[in-house]
Amino acid sequence: MDPASSHRLAARHQPHHDGSARYVGDLAPRLGQHVDLLVRVPAGQDVERVFLRSVPDGEPHFTAAAVDRVEDTGTIWWRAALEMVNPEMNYRFWLHTPDGGRWLTAAGLHDHDLPDATDFRLTTHPAPPAWAADAVVYQIFPDRYHRSGDAPLAAWARPADWDTPLRTGDAEALQQMYGGDLWGVVRKIDHIQRLGATVIYLTPFFEGRSNHRYDAVSFDRVDPALGGDEALIALTAEAHRRGIKVIGDITLNHSGDRHDWFRTAQADPASPEAGFYFFGEGGPEDYATFLGVRTLPTFDHRSAELRRRLYEGPDSVIAKYLGAPFHLDGWRVDVAQMAGRRGDVELNHLVATTTAATVRAANPDAVLLAEHQHDASLALAGDGWQGTMSYAGFTRPVWSWLVEKHDQKDFWAVPGPIPDYDAARVRATMTAFGAALPWRSRAHNLTLLDSHDTARFRTFAGPDRQLLGAALLFTLPGIPMVFSGDEVGVLGEGLEEGRKPFPWDESAWDQHTWRTYRDLVRLRRGHSALTGGGLRWLLAEGDVLLFEREDERERILVQISRADHPPVAGEWHATHLLGGPQLVPGRDLPCEGPAVHVWSVAR
Amino acid sequence: MDPASSHRLAARHQPHHDGSARYVGDLAPRLGQHVDLLVRVPAGQDVERVFLRSVPDGEPHFTAAAVDRVEDTGTIWWRAALEMVNPEMNYRFWLHTPDGGRWLTAAGLHDHDLPDATDFRLTTHPAPPAWAADAVVYQIFPDRYHRSGDAPLAAWARPADWDTPLRTGDAEALQQMYGGDLWGVVRKIDHIQRLGATVIYLTPFFEGRSNHRYDAVSFDRVDPALGGDEALIALTAEAHRRGIKVIGDITLNHSGDRHDWFRTAQADPASPEAGFYFFGEGGPEDYATFLGVRTLPTFDHRSAELRRRLYEGPDSVIAKYLGAPFHLDGWRVDVAQMAGRRGDVELNHLVATTTAATVRAANPDAVLLAEHQHDASLALAGDGWQGTMSYAGFTRPVWSWLVEKHDQKDFWAVPGPIPDYDAARVRATMTAFGAALPWRSRAHNLTLLDSHDTARFRTFAGPDRQLLGAALLFTLPGIPMVFSGDEVGVLGEGLEEGRKPFPWDESAWDQHTWRTYRDLVRLRRGHSALTGGGLRWLLAEGDVLLFEREDERERILVQISRADHPPVAGEWHATHLLGGPQLVPGRDLPCEGPAVHVWSVAR
Repeated sequence: MDPASSHRLAARHQPHHDGSARYVGDLAPRLGQHVDLLVRVPAGQDVERVFLRSVPDGEPHFTAAAVDRVEDTGTIWWRAALEMVNPEMNYRFWLHTPDGGRWLTAAGLHDHDLPDATDFRLTTHPAPPAWAADAVVYQIFPDRYHRSGDAPLAAWARPADWDTPLRTGDAEALQQMYGGDLWGVVRKIDHIQRLGATVIYLTPFFEGRSNHRYDAVSFDRVDPALGGDEALIALTAEAHRRGIKVIGDITLNHSGDRHDWFRTAQADPASPEAGFYFFGEGGPEDYATFLGVRTLPTFDHRSAELRRRLYEGPDSVIAKYLGAPFHLDGWRVDVAQMAGRRGDVELNHLVATTTAATVRAANPDAVLLAEHQHDASLALAGDGWQGTMSYAGFTRPVWSWLVEKHDQKDFWAVPGPIPDYDAARVRATMTAFGAALPWRSRAHNLTLLDSHDTARFRTFAGPDRQLLGAALLFTLPGIPMVFSGDEVGVLGEGLEEGRKPFPWDESAWDQHTWRTYRDLVRLRRGHSALTGGGLRWLLAEGDVLLFEREDERERILVQISRADHPPVAGEWHATHLLGGPQLVPGRDLPCEGPAVHVWSVAR
Repeated sequence: MDPASSHRLAARHQPHHDGSARYVGDLAPRLGQHVDLLVRVPAGQDVERVFLRSVPDGEPHFTAAAVDRVEDTGTIWWRAALEMVNPEMNYRFWLHTPDGGRWLTAAGLHDHDLPDATDFRLTTHPAPPAWAADAVVYQIFPDRYHRSGDAPLAAWARPADWDTPLRTGDAEALQQMYGGDLWGVVRKIDHIQRLGATVIYLTPFFEGRSNHRYDAVSFDRVDPALGGDEALIALTAEAHRRGIKVIGDITLNHSGDRHDWFRTAQADPASPEAGFYFFGEGGPEDYATFLGVRTLPTFDHRSAELRRRLYEGPDSVIAKYLGAPFHLDGWRVDVAQMAGRRGDVELNHLVATTTAATVRAANPDAVLLAEHQHDASLALAGDGWQGTMSYAGFTRPVWSWLVEKHDQKDFWAVPGPIPDYDAARVRATMTAFGAALPWRSRAHNLTLLDSHDTARFRTFAGPDRQLLGAALLFTLPGIPMVFSGDEVGVLGEGLEEGRKPFPWDESAWDQHTWRTYRDLVRLRRGHSALTGGGLRWLLAEGDVLLFEREDERERILVQISRADHPPVAGEWHATHLLGGPQLVPGRDLPCEGPAVHVWSVAR
């Protein structure tokens, strides 16, 4: 089922369907509803009949499609109605051709039978809030964005001035505190607005014993060193005044070992809190941890009291910060792939669906995203997370295409160097991971070039290719996320180095990068086809990726050239939005690289 | 991930792992156990390092493999231990090569990242009984195998003599009863033993209102028209005396509308039985059915009382027939893909796991198989069915390669003719469906050329190609099932026609077919590599399939030639087991077709 090998060159003229509004009559159907689905079949395909295959109640069912319309170009649009018999429906199309049939799934065309894993998927679960689809997220690591000076530093911290070099590689590095705080985010919110971001995503604001704060000591209050509850309330108020959303970050997989609950649990095996963790036979020091890190004891989600305190119902931590006076607009859940999962305990799905129900009740306009670094398809099934961080389906293939050095010891846990992908492998990877998800989940995945959990992309790709990556970030499906600093050219060789304080001295900024980021954000926010449009790959070969994003209003053509490449014959009348020139049929597309071109195609 | 396109020609020298005992240290590990896994890397592959990737508790984890041994041929066997952290572990291998890494999954080699759907899978769930792995199943449609004359015909039946032509295509056809019975099976059990089958699988023996009996009117007793309880008891006793197992067939998805429970439910909405079915607002005639068939009301598995009566615990129907005095050796569950599934009710997994627990408690040496006509991967996850009927992964691709007519209106619900596959598509299909399952499930799938639910394969493939199909049936992984009559050349244009009475007049038999079936059964049962060995595809092109089955004891090479094909250079010393000639390195393999060749390779 490798689309790269099966129709690389012919991709411009392949039958197509995806889960976007261009092809699906209702993106948020209810149970029992009939939803019109469209398939586009370009001229010359010899497709005689089209059938929709769904699997209601577990049994395959075929519905003959009718011709909806024929374009002047000869493209035929076929239409069939999918009945939402079950809350989650998978479907595919069966195309009759004179040389035998072809299955059309989210992984492309197939000349043989195949399992359902790449079927298109449509669900009746409540949709994410409307604002999420168009969002541009700005990720802030609170200790490193801006220091107001108004918040006290924690007693355990090793204070650092804003320009002190980062300490890395040892335990003490995690105690190095630059003193960034939420008042600082309020003061520097103008920068976020200048960039054009619409959402601030804060890594944890709970007090911890490290600068990353993923080792919470309490969920009862915002860390006083960040300005406390008052600063978060002020930040969400100021952000909302400007039309910006704010989402928080919480680990449901573990707490810190200094957490109130864990201290109680260690002190009193008869306490309810003792049931919140996995203790062995060896007493209070014998407990399960996140990947062997002693300071991060793992939660045992079999405890109903833990669930109630953390994420189930109106008195939970999850609910508390979504309501008054905090008014958070959503959560990103850390280490979601492990939460509720240990040995023969498998409650991962319960964690996700319970949290989702709580979020919805507390703030129906809030979003629920999750960390997931590999295959999130099972995590995104059901009524749980609305999207995950798309490391596997976006970040890794982009790095593998654009990074220039290939001598690393590992690529984020995968042993060996970052591989050297050609464009075909990039598309194959993106398609493979994208096809495993409902389109809506894919469109609500956080796409990113880097984060607080990686080195800076620019350090490995260089400044020119960083912008190619950014162009992919802002033109492909997903919710683009910018890790604070990327937009002005911050570097960082590793995870810790990438978390350096934001350089507020603008003379240190790469102004071309800053300008391009703003252009790209403006481009994305100005064209609904880039946020809600479908995705058709037209070419993915060696040094060039060419694809189309399209909705009812507009058709946008994007070409990303990593280096000079053979010319591609154009077939469109198109106006450039970024990079020039105008296109007319028969004229070759530009073939120099590195370059980014975006056009609006006349229809 | 299409193995057909990515390494068709090079397949003979590809790195390989599968879930068989040749590569997996323990096929039935317990939770927490470390299981040695082996990867075979032929010479010339430039594989520098090998890593095992597993996903314990949801997080990817890499284990460096060590060189276990190097063969004279240069083949290197790498070894790494998989820790069974969770009850079901998926894993893959990461091969370092100078030109970048390759993932090795059950779907083959991949030059880019991909989701986990094709990962290898190993589970800690209780293993199927040992006898199942080596079984050869003989499927009997009781009304059509043999009539003893000792059982009374039901009052509603339209009696037919053994040589009366079949009535087909209308409701009355289903009332046509030839009077075959279980005493008849006892009398003609010699035939089954002559074939060499080790298991008799009886389609339903419960009383119904049709000749197929899937519309049960009661589960309390064996149909008197089949000889009643007494005949089943006698049959299992006689079969067991001869070392033959007997499995039954039950529909957990629905009953007949004349079933005691349904009659009670219709008569009394306050009865417990009213909760066994889905009644609408419109009174006793408003109920949910199997695919709209009014005589087959669908069970509502939310009823705990229904579950208790049908399949939960020692007093259930499932348990009853596995114990004394019936001593059935297992069940095949009909329409398993729909049972427990309707609209927003999703209890399919509960049906499977509850039934499995009941089977295990009632008779730990019993097998639990299920009908499933498409992608059974989700149905086979968890501790439920031990195998399903492999229509999608075996029957369809075999028909698509061997059938000679391609003018049908549909291919078992899929609109359009039976496609015309080349060998590459056969292998791609088998690999795609096989890769979605734990190896143990795949090895316990019922493979079949046809059944009571299809036309006879011979009618579409012709006598020569029937034997090619049979050769695939008895040499590929799975539990081969022969639909009674195939072994002597019975024909049948459609599902009903295929159910014709067994021709006991031997002058009507195709003696060549009968001899070949017995040879193939003997071959399979005589070589453990054919039952428990791994599977390596060596060539799949156009008219020829060449593959290897191998265990610790023996290496068996199988070539199935649909027609004459270009010669394939041999590289083995091998003794023919079927079809000749002896092989020596450098001599071409036979290239005439249609033909079946099986060799034992010297190691």
